[in-house]
Order: sequence, then structure tokens, then C-alpha cells
Amino acid sequence: MSQIQVEKKVLNENQIVAERLRAQFREHGIFCFNIISSPGSGKTSLLERTLERLPKDSKVALLTGDLQTENDATRLARFGFPVRQIITGGTCHLDARMVEKHLAEWNLADLDTLIVENVGNLVCPTGYDLGEAFKIVMLSVTEGEDKPLKYPSIFFKSELMILNKIDLLPYVPFNADQAKANARKVHPGMEILDVSCTSGAGLDEWMNWLKQKRGDTVLAAHS
Amino acid sequence: MSQIQVEKKVLNENQIVAERLRAQFREHGIFCFNIISSPGSGKTSLLERTLERLPKDSKVALLTGDLQTENDATRLARFGFPVRQIITGGTCHLDARMVEKHLAEWNLADLDTLIVENVGNLVCPTGYDLGEAFKIVMLSVTEGEDKPLKYPSIFFKSELMILNKIDLLPYVPFNADQAKANARKVHPGMEILDVSCTSGAGLDEWMNWLKQKRGDTVLAAHS
Repeated sequence: MSQIQVEKKVLNENQIVAERLRAQFREHGIFCFNIISSPGSGKTSLLERTLERLPKDSKVALLTGDLQTENDATRLARFGFPVRQIITGGTCHLDARMVEKHLAEWNLADLDTLIVENVGNLVCPTGYDLGEAFKIVMLSVTEGEDKPLKYPSIFFKSELMILNKIDLLPYVPFNADQAKANARKVHPGMEILDVSCTSGAGLDEWMNWLKQKRGDTVLAAHS
Repeated sequence: MSQIQVEKKVLNENQIVAERLRAQFREHGIFCFNIISSPGSGKTSLLERTLERLPKDSKVALLTGDLQTENDATRLARFGFPVRQIITGGTCHLDARMVEKHLAEWNLADLDTLIVENVGNLVCPTGYDLGEAFKIVMLSVTEGEDKPLKYPSIFFKSELMILNKIDLLPYVPFNADQAKANARKVHPGMEILDVSCTSGAGLDEWMNWLKQKRGDTVLAAHS
């Protein structure tokens, strides 16, 4: 088989597992999202701020992917919700089989939200469906406003763009309006939220967005 | 063939082309380096600052990779040296064949330095030899000091780590000493330069480093 044939086969196999996961999430009323960005854009920081704002009895669990280290799981576990680290070794993305395997120890009936933090990579995670309700892409203001044009696929496929680190806007040559226009050139009408995990700006809007999307998704699953 | 077998085959094929490129670079006394980082760490900015410091008669050429857009080639072409954009489409890294193809229009006898700016990705470019004398990894202070531990392979394989955006240190929770210790945990004795493409800090040291490495490489090729 050629490289392209193998890639197709791998993606097809992934899709089968992803659909199995999606059916399980639907059965148990679990809302799942998959957050993707470059390394260091602030995915884990956003999830820390998210977990500390959730009621303590929330039925939330997290899977967090990295090539190496348990660092992110350790950071996220401090909030008392179940967390598992997926260490991919050399693999540059999460796939549906890794998610399925790491979910096996949990009773899905005890959950209503599953957060998946992907490996830091703006390219490869794009093609892998993990059974999530949707992907969220994060861009930080230190990365340059042309990233949606250079890495269009993930911006096209994501339900929401989170523009993070807006507290640093005074110190970096970043045109936020241009970045948003670029994202919407790739994905017309894309939803965008401005956030700073340091100052707290935009976090209320993020929590409200999440709550509403969670409601919509669970409602759709039961209609 | 399994996915792993195909990956091995692709890497073996890449290695053959990379060795062919390396032999050509050696024949023509061309010093080639391959710069790798996350999207938005500042690879293109560093190359802009580098080109503006070079004598106008330098025999330097650049290849710059992205999934989409000619933006980086346009930015780099302003300095008068030959530049070609490699648009990879969906591919998350440059490979030796892309480099060979994009070099075909140039007369290698007219060059003494070839700079390759890889696709913004801290994972996938790591495994692809492009015939370069060495890889350089860039990390910016907005990305978090644990990145060398999370993405060890590229830090292990790189001759130099450039710590960029040090002008932002007062505004971000980044421990530079810890970041360097992490890099040297993965790659003992690794060379590291602190740089700011905005303030200009560290750029003289970078130019000196480059000049010395260029000399060493060309000397070794002719000995």
C-alpha cells in the first residue's frame, strides 16, 4: 500500500472508533469537546480556570494528551475531577482508540461532560475525530495574526476560536481584528471569544458559552 | 503493510534524498540549517533580523515551509536574497524531496548558505532529515518552561535552542532558568541563546554563533 492508502485506512479505522464513542456519549448524555492549539497557547491554563469555576459536584472528567510527561494531568487533578494523561510517545495527535482505551476505567454513567485536551499541534489533530461534539481551536496573541490563513483546516473545522492571552496585547505587535478577520475568511461566521487566563477577562463569557453548548448538545441527543 | 512499516519506508526514502542533498551541499560548500518551532514562536522574525544584518553580497538563500500562504516568503523576500515558499498543503512537516524539488531552479554553485524554515510544528519535522548541517529549535517565553520535557525529541536533536521573545519576560509567568534546565535535562550541554527579535537583544550573539558554525561546517567539509 502507498502512504496515502495507509493514511486513508488509518483515518477510516479511526472514524469507526470515533462513531462508537459518539454513540456512547449520546447514550449517556455526555457532552464532549476536543481543544486544539499550538504548544503553549494556554489550553491547560484555560482548563484550570474552567475547573475552578465549576460546581464541585459537576460530573466532569478530562483526558489530556502529550508526547511525554504527566505534567498536565497533575495540574488538572488539583481540582478534584477525574483526569487521565494520555502519553502518546512520538505520536503527534490523539486518536479515537487512545480515547476509548483511556475511558475504559471510568463508568460513563457517572459523567456528563468529557473534556479532551489534545497534543499541542495545530496540524495533525485536525484530521482525527475523537467522537467529540465539536473541536475548539485556541490561538494566543503572541502567535501572530496570520495563523488562521497558514493553518486553515483546524480553524475551518472548529466550532469556536478562543483568542487567549489578551492581557499581553499591549506588549506584542498583534492585530486582533485582523486575526479574527483571517479566521472568518477561513470559517465564515466563526464564533470567537477573547480570553485571558491570567487576568480572568472573558472567562465568564467562556463558561456561559460552554453551558449553553452543553445544553444544546444534550438536548439534541435526546430529541 | 502496517502503518509502522509504511512510516519506516517513508523515513528510509527520505533519508536517501537527504543524503543526496547533504552530498551536494558538501560539494558546493553550502552551510544549511533547519529551524523548527511551534507556530508563532518567531522563526520568520528571527530570519528577518538575520537577513538585515548580512552583507548584501552574501550568497544566502531561503526555503520556507507552510501549509498554506506565501506570507513568509513575501516577508523574507524584502531583503533581496532568493526565497522560495514550500506550500505543503496538509502536510505537517517538510521532507527532503520537497527541499530537493524547490532547490532545482537555483544554481547551487552560487550559494554558500541555505536556511530552511520548517512548518510550525514541534513534533513532526523532528523525524525528517533535510540534509542540513543541523537543526535549531526555537522556544518563546510565552509557551511555558516545560515544553522541552513534553516535546523532548526536537530538543534532543537540535544543535541550538533559541529562547525568543525575552522582551516579554516581565509580563509572563515563565522561569527561563527552569526552561533551560529542562532543555539540558533532555539534551545535556545543549547550547542556548536568549534572543528578542523586537528589542534586538541577543542578535549579535546569534550572528556570531552562526558565523562560527558556518566556518566550522565548511572547514569540516573540506578537510
